Amino acid sequence: MNHPIETEALVIGAGPVGLFQVFQLGLQGIHCHVVDALPHVGGQCAELYPAKPIYDIPGIPFCTGSELVERLQQQVAPFKPTLHLGQQVSTIERQADQRLAVCTDKGQTFLVRTLFIAAGVGAFVPRRMALDGLNAFEGSQVFAEHASPERWAGQHLVVAGDADTALQTCLDASQGPQAAASVTLLHRRDQFAATPELISQMRQACSAGRMRFVAGQPTGVRIEHGRLQALELLNPQGETEWLHLDVLQTCLGLSPKLGPVAQWGLAMDRKQLVVNTENFATAEPGIFAVGDINTYPGKKKLILCGFHEATLAAFGAVALLRPEQKTLLQYTTTSTLLHQRLGIA
Amino acid sequence: MNHPIETEALVIGAGPVGLFQVFQLGLQGIHCHVVDALPHVGGQCAELYPAKPIYDIPGIPFCTGSELVERLQQQVAPFKPTLHLGQQVSTIERQADQRLAVCTDKGQTFLVRTLFIAAGVGAFVPRRMALDGLNAFEGSQVFAEHASPERWAGQHLVVAGDADTALQTCLDASQGPQAAASVTLLHRRDQFAATPELISQMRQACSAGRMRFVAGQPTGVRIEHGRLQALELLNPQGETEWLHLDVLQTCLGLSPKLGPVAQWGLAMDRKQLVVNTENFATAEPGIFAVGDINTYPGKKKLILCGFHEATLAAFGAVALLRPEQKTLLQYTTTSTLLHQRLGIA
Repeated sequence: MNHPIETEALVIGAGPVGLFQVFQLGLQGIHCHVVDALPHVGGQCAELYPAKPIYDIPGIPFCTGSELVERLQQQVAPFKPTLHLGQQVSTIERQADQRLAVCTDKGQTFLVRTLFIAAGVGAFVPRRMALDGLNAFEGSQVFAEHASPERWAGQHLVVAGDADTALQTCLDASQGPQAAASVTLLHRRDQFAATPELISQMRQACSAGRMRFVAGQPTGVRIEHGRLQALELLNPQGETEWLHLDVLQTCLGLSPKLGPVAQWGLAMDRKQLVVNTENFATAEPGIFAVGDINTYPGKKKLILCGFHEATLAAFGAVALLRPEQKTLLQYTTTSTLLHQRLGIA
Repeated sequence: MNHPIETEALVIGAGPVGLFQVFQLGLQGIHCHVVDALPHVGGQCAELYPAKPIYDIPGIPFCTGSELVERLQQQVAPFKPTLHLGQQVSTIERQADQRLAVCTDKGQTFLVRTLFIAAGVGAFVPRRMALDGLNAFEGSQVFAEHASPERWAGQHLVVAGDADTALQTCLDASQGPQAAASVTLLHRRDQFAATPELISQMRQACSAGRMRFVAGQPTGVRIEHGRLQALELLNPQGETEWLHLDVLQTCLGLSPKLGPVAQWGLAMDRKQLVVNTENFATAEPGIFAVGDINTYPGKKKLILCGFHEATLAAFGAVALLRPEQKTLLQYTTTSTLLHQRLGIA
């Protein structure tokens, strides 16, 4: 358990809307911390369409998802947010002093007065293999998070997946001082979503006998003496076979999971957080929701709408955090105060 | 009177929000016409701060007003809006067939089913000299619009103003075949807001006797036989003097004027049009208001908020114009239909 971090504002989600939330809070003179489940900023833009084009960001006739994220990072830079990446918020609780205690799955607690949920479609977490009885071995014999050699050294390793990460993990595990005892790549058919280079390297490693490929659909598990012994597979010929293993590393990609948000006790409508359109606050004092995760009459899940929402939420926050301060609208074009905050002249 | 133009959508105001309204209507498959009082697009950005920096457009860490306008023009280009510049909407009337008849001061009528008021702080019109009795001579002896030689040729011309346009007009009128009989520059004090080059040329022309400068504050008019004869001035010494003239050209800059909007019969709150936040519609069916001219709980007069408003207004319009069509949210990243409309591939 780390020492709790006390901060005026915490943003959950470092996608484009979360980043712009940091910018607008910065203009209001509010420094913030940011938590995201991914190991990098950018959210869906970075994870689902980094190279795909976006045409409807106002004033940007064309950019890719990752270009948009780069531009927003540059815009946010003057406000130096503190990023806590690769961790997911698991609980939110109201303290006696009315602050919110926000805890992550990595044991970090934040004590905050305002919280901005910009969690999009949820946290991007590794997709799990859906197989009865497999869950119990997560962390001991079954791993979905980033692979590492200590797990497989000298073990019979099965890697499930068809994309770059799966193939690279097989190649990494098939050689060197921490090589696995055996490496098996498992995918339902002999066709892969990886780059041609990796596919060719994987085939060479198979020919050289350093690893093998097995086509099959997992259908069950064999457990003996409290240990996962094998996966039951249905092979492409329609036969059942057993695949023995010590360690199963799944590389099935990431999928967004609303997860704990649903348990935070906030009003929801079809998995979205209900907000008002005056300041995008939820009914829970100090908690705002912006971007794809919120809902209100007329809501469209568009990035540019999230930018507006984050802006009004920042005004909502400053009214809570600095009730004595007049919320005068200032313009970045002319305001000396905003220029100071932006670090200009 | 020109032939009426029948169109599904008309946007009043070609500032950044009006331009983005065109873009969002375009994505919805709706072509539109645009009216603006200025002779060019860009509104306040182009008129008030073309060279000044803007820092808070999401994804654009820095741009000038005119750069933002250029970027938006490029973004709007695929939808080829029909621009009607240099004219102001004077009346809006509901027709028997429920369409709106929108007339401009240049005699153009539009028959439209949806109308988007993106008029900002109002139409930018030349500032008038506020002097009792002067109005009556507008168009005969007094001109506030763009100056032209036919007005002053052989006449005793007074030009009021202290900026580039005023000085340039004096220089133009002081020479050539259409020169004025005399040219007098009038400003309250011997200090100018023009470029150093123009100020120096003006002083040379004065020294050479081709024009003169008179410092004074207009306080009254002398009218004889139905003609404007002279302006009464209070000079810097506190004395009253008379400035004879045939023609008065005022070059006092532009100022935004809400003007006719106030007479269109729409619900207003402190000079702003009241809208709902679901689709930024006014209470008048088919009339939407976006950008600085509207108001709703939480409203902030920021360009980026106007972008959001224009987006939801476009969804509101398509629901009116194509009631049979499902308003499915499509993304520019993936939608083939939107790519076709954008003219991509």
